[in-house]
Amino acid sequence: MTAFLNTPVSEGPPNRSVVDDDIYKFIMLQFILRFYPDVQVKFSLINRDKKIPLGDVVSEHELRAAFDHARTLRFGPRVKDTNIAYMRGMRMHQQVMFDEPYFEFLEHFELPPYELSRVGNQYAMSSSGPWSRATFWEIRMMQIPVELYYRELMRRMTPIEREVLYSRATDRIYKELSKLSNSKYKPKVVNFGTRRRHSFLWEKFVTAMCKEVLGDQLIGTSNIWMAHHFNLVPMGTNAHELPMVATAIAKGDDAKRRAQYQVLEQWQKLYGVFLRICLPDTFGTKQFLANAPEWLADWRGFRDDSGDTFENIEGYIDWYKERGILKPKEAGKIVIPSDGENADHALKVCEAFDEHINLSFGIGPNLTNAFFGCHPTPDKKVPGLDVTWAEAFRPFSIVAKVEEADGNPVVKLSNNITKATGPKDAVAESVRIFGGEGRIKQRVVV
Amino acid sequence: MTAFLNTPVSEGPPNRSVVDDDIYKFIMLQFILRFYPDVQVKFSLINRDKKIPLGDVVSEHELRAAFDHARTLRFGPRVKDTNIAYMRGMRMHQQVMFDEPYFEFLEHFELPPYELSRVGNQYAMSSSGPWSRATFWEIRMMQIPVELYYRELMRRMTPIEREVLYSRATDRIYKELSKLSNSKYKPKVVNFGTRRRHSFLWEKFVTAMCKEVLGDQLIGTSNIWMAHHFNLVPMGTNAHELPMVATAIAKGDDAKRRAQYQVLEQWQKLYGVFLRICLPDTFGTKQFLANAPEWLADWRGFRDDSGDTFENIEGYIDWYKERGILKPKEAGKIVIPSDGENADHALKVCEAFDEHINLSFGIGPNLTNAFFGCHPTPDKKVPGLDVTWAEAFRPFSIVAKVEEADGNPVVKLSNNITKATGPKDAVAESVRIFGGEGRIKQRVVV
Repeated sequence: MTAFLNTPVSEGPPNRSVVDDDIYKFIMLQFILRFYPDVQVKFSLINRDKKIPLGDVVSEHELRAAFDHARTLRFGPRVKDTNIAYMRGMRMHQQVMFDEPYFEFLEHFELPPYELSRVGNQYAMSSSGPWSRATFWEIRMMQIPVELYYRELMRRMTPIEREVLYSRATDRIYKELSKLSNSKYKPKVVNFGTRRRHSFLWEKFVTAMCKEVLGDQLIGTSNIWMAHHFNLVPMGTNAHELPMVATAIAKGDDAKRRAQYQVLEQWQKLYGVFLRICLPDTFGTKQFLANAPEWLADWRGFRDDSGDTFENIEGYIDWYKERGILKPKEAGKIVIPSDGENADHALKVCEAFDEHINLSFGIGPNLTNAFFGCHPTPDKKVPGLDVTWAEAFRPFSIVAKVEEADGNPVVKLSNNITKATGPKDAVAESVRIFGGEGRIKQRVVV
Repeated sequence: MTAFLNTPVSEGPPNRSVVDDDIYKFIMLQFILRFYPDVQVKFSLINRDKKIPLGDVVSEHELRAAFDHARTLRFGPRVKDTNIAYMRGMRMHQQVMFDEPYFEFLEHFELPPYELSRVGNQYAMSSSGPWSRATFWEIRMMQIPVELYYRELMRRMTPIEREVLYSRATDRIYKELSKLSNSKYKPKVVNFGTRRRHSFLWEKFVTAMCKEVLGDQLIGTSNIWMAHHFNLVPMGTNAHELPMVATAIAKGDDAKRRAQYQVLEQWQKLYGVFLRICLPDTFGTKQFLANAPEWLADWRGFRDDSGDTFENIEGYIDWYKERGILKPKEAGKIVIPSDGENADHALKVCEAFDEHINLSFGIGPNLTNAFFGCHPTPDKKVPGLDVTWAEAFRPFSIVAKVEEADGNPVVKLSNNITKATGPKDAVAESVRIFGGEGRIKQRVVV
């Protein structure tokens, strides 16, 4: 109605561009093409929080239209395409990131078909195909339903309610960022929020705000499109899917236990030290560190994604010290906490470890989707639903995971047993192989 | 940059339409044309708050352009003009408001020329002419410099700072309105904020929010354009300028003392009981009530605009009781507090008087210009100015008052001596005539 009542109910496709995606997918793709070109996988959507009625809110028609649109997104010819030019020119990680045959592959890249069905108040969504193609569903499988979910909620609000909601979220993010920028630790931050973002437009806005408020503390964003458009460094390395798939296709207990290190050994054939960040919690951090090969101490550091951050970081520091790296900070070692991070938690981590190790924080939905408590009438029911506005805007845990690799069930245990994925018996089998030590039970928020 | 970064730095003329004005000006105009068609007056701008450096912030060029534009705003031919059709059709105050000769006058209406000069860090602005024309400078003289002031401040902010500022102001207004709508008293509210509004666009937004959050509690707005576009009742009756001018041109003490009642006697020849709201504080409410004619008890009630609201309302109730109206509420008597009202104060007034008299609250800049404390970095200096952002967004008291009538100085005393206007010796002379009883000294915020 007025220029102040145009907070948009986003229209158009939630996923806007073939590079509206985490850079780590592209970094991993090159790895997959080199070492696992023939593996067939199935990626599936998992909404861990059944109380969020995705199926009741998002229409199947709209969801299919958005997934179908995502399949139409392509790179252009590699001699002309802007995104390829940008990626070809990347030197921000101290190396040539991608080679020309890789761009030849991208030129012909497309997402494999998907299957979608309604199951209760949720959707079951999956896509099968070569790992090198199906892997690109991961971010889209989350971005699309999440944005359509919020878009439908926004439609059920009045323009004034939307304005108040966005105003409160704006103020909250500004305060969150100000805590980080006003802290004496000046922690470095990477925006990891693209996958569970409220919407594309909101991520853009949040990225602009991060850039202004954090200044040099904002060292990058995981999203290539955002990095490209905001002159930021696209950041990310590897994900659980590498050891998950390698372990699933390995034959025998020993080979399975070795697989988590094997992928890292392969990784360092492709990527230099800047991109050698290890994610140790796929089958439990304790067993990972205990059995890790010596050369892993030469890697740059760890991304910390589950369990108790403080215990974990102590573990990394001890592990370095046992390997003769008595001053991990001076040696350039880094930990990147990325498990539902927020400013208060990050600053506590700084307080505890800033002197001992380098830290960067991967902050996700607490930047790009922090709407809990922002609705003006939180106790009212959402029209047409049996949940309140407060419940509907509560953070929820949606993931897209590889479920099968060459016909084998794929498992992730993590340090937090409620974050485990995979069929029950396969999870039990993995616990037998990797041990159950060090696992905690913690509510998963995002 | 994004759809969330388009909170506008308004462009275009601050005063958008010939009816982007308080309705009371038009209601008073008909009165002036009938009873005082030949009086010549001078209207002047007064910024009571010299610490707000209007002259340093607003460029003279921009100010002149906006005032010049205001002079170009006209009604069209009365047989075709939309605004005249709307005004001709008005029955919301239980009477035909305006007669056809009045519209003939409007058809040829224009604002008289103005004089503008820079005085220190302020502007001196005035306009002289027939009362029936110069009177229309009042609202524009405030709206225009105030909006240009804030517009320039907004230009000196980054888009993110603007977004945070507007977000916080949005949340604040929503909370303010929610207090009113959640209160058991359900106080009735009129938006009186047009004259000191942050901007035209912001007033539109606030009006939309008032309408949604207050529902039936919002009984109207003073601004005709807003009323017209939001399907609200345009509300207002008369202002201090009537007794001020009538008193200034009256000859002798007795005639001057009678003038404040004479205008009301004339008023009721034109307007029925619905529009018979008396504003008693021009020369002090105590003397006004003490000497008021008996017929005034038949009027609908009082607008309360200065001094201690609680004492004043007690005074009105006593006054009615002394005149045999023992239950003013049941008798339909009303008080409309309008002196810098806000939700907390209004609810206290309800608590004290809701059972005893009808109440409606005229709320002004606390709705349309409540930005104090909303800037993200309040302690930083505004670029180019020696004031902080907090100081720059502090509410300030700007008024446009009639200064001369037929060559005589024009005085207002009010119940709050810091709200008095007029040359020093004329104020002293008025105190001699009307007495100094009941006047307090109170900081004027708006």
